[in-house]
Amino acid sequence: MPRFAFTVEFDGRPFMGWQRQAHGPSVQQTIEDAIAAVTGEAAVIHAAGRTDAGVHGLAMRAHADIAKDIASFRLMEAINARMRPAPVAILACETVADDWHARFSCTGRSYVYRIANRRAPLTFDAGLVWRVVQPLDADAMQAAAQHLVGSHDFTTFRSAHCQAHSPLKTLDRLDVERQGDRIAIHAAARSFLHHQVRSMVGCLAMVGMGRWTANDLRDALEAKDRAALGLNAPPDGLYFVRATYP
Amino acid sequence: MPRFAFTVEFDGRPFMGWQRQAHGPSVQQTIEDAIAAVTGEAAVIHAAGRTDAGVHGLAMRAHADIAKDIASFRLMEAINARMRPAPVAILACETVADDWHARFSCTGRSYVYRIANRRAPLTFDAGLVWRVVQPLDADAMQAAAQHLVGSHDFTTFRSAHCQAHSPLKTLDRLDVERQGDRIAIHAAARSFLHHQVRSMVGCLAMVGMGRWTANDLRDALEAKDRAALGLNAPPDGLYFVRATYP
Repeated sequence: MPRFAFTVEFDGRPFMGWQRQAHGPSVQQTIEDAIAAVTGEAAVIHAAGRTDAGVHGLAMRAHADIAKDIASFRLMEAINARMRPAPVAILACETVADDWHARFSCTGRSYVYRIANRRAPLTFDAGLVWRVVQPLDADAMQAAAQHLVGSHDFTTFRSAHCQAHSPLKTLDRLDVERQGDRIAIHAAARSFLHHQVRSMVGCLAMVGMGRWTANDLRDALEAKDRAALGLNAPPDGLYFVRATYP
Repeated sequence: MPRFAFTVEFDGRPFMGWQRQAHGPSVQQTIEDAIAAVTGEAAVIHAAGRTDAGVHGLAMRAHADIAKDIASFRLMEAINARMRPAPVAILACETVADDWHARFSCTGRSYVYRIANRRAPLTFDAGLVWRVVQPLDADAMQAAAQHLVGSHDFTTFRSAHCQAHSPLKTLDRLDVERQGDRIAIHAAARSFLHHQVRSMVGCLAMVGMGRWTANDLRDALEAKDRAALGLNAPPDGLYFVRATYP
């Protein structure tokens, strides 16, 4: 049965998250329902990552096995038409090898976390960025962030619901960039723990506000204790950016 | 009575436009109702420009005369708190001279028009950009746009409802910039006719699609006839960017 890979953009605001849930709409269900409408098949899609409620995707990668004889471009167009008006769009679709797996073949994931550092309430971006009213020192955040880069036990930055076998992860990149009143925090790793990016961002915000020093952040990491967490950032500002494959 | 000047950001999607309307919500009414709630006064606000339904504002300038003895910062904070959850925010507020008028003192207005040049449906940006599926040649649009810069009779690019006395306007800038699948068209003038930016953008899109040449655009301008208009772009992508004062 042909395997199709999808690149998916979605606005996470109306969803309970990527994964299908009994109690509310999900990105997975939106796409699977559209595939079923187009093909008559109950295909299951697998994604590179499972995002939480309110988290967004710029180019999530996913795959599904579909028996119907249909060209990838027509499949993409038909799924997109069926998903309206849900804010989910297939940006690209192609056939891949039978052993290519969106989750298990993935060797790199990157996220961006967006902050609006301003006093005024949000208009266009409500639910799409984290508004932080206190002035943030992005240079201090960038310097502190480098303490988290590398291989560490990230227990402090891990949700109690995290299902990973080990809290050991290698963080390849954590960069803080300011443009005007916007701050973007770029994170990349082979994989992340549940809530890891939001927990790291929350603690970087503590540093940016001057409530924590870079050493406080390092101490929190070394505590290997969720109780040492300074702050967990809300889902609003988090975007799954990219999945990479060999 | 002290005169307060406001810098206003608004998401135009839920509004009938800037100006107060009997048949639906407006930005003006949202702000005036908040001022009334804060001050107990039926203040009237005047803006640098009146935007149509669905058009957005990044930094609209407006003013109102308010008798209440209140500092500008506190006034701004109180108005913002009262306007929630409407997507309108006062970004700045200060007292100005009695003869300063947001509309009549304004000597320059600029707009940006945003296009998403892509096949996939919109997610985050639905209602915030114009999606154009056909590939657009931004270089051709930029070259053609220069035919419109300068002093002209813009009758072709003027709505039938335009209330301006004369169709003669001086367009100071019309620049087309592409970044990835996004195209931004920057327009600046002392003032614009009703629908002028959207009409110019629509015709530039005709050029970008290859359906019009730059000469066709020049001919449309010289026709001085609304019937010569190629296309009127939708309000979705239009943003009032800035008002300038001496």
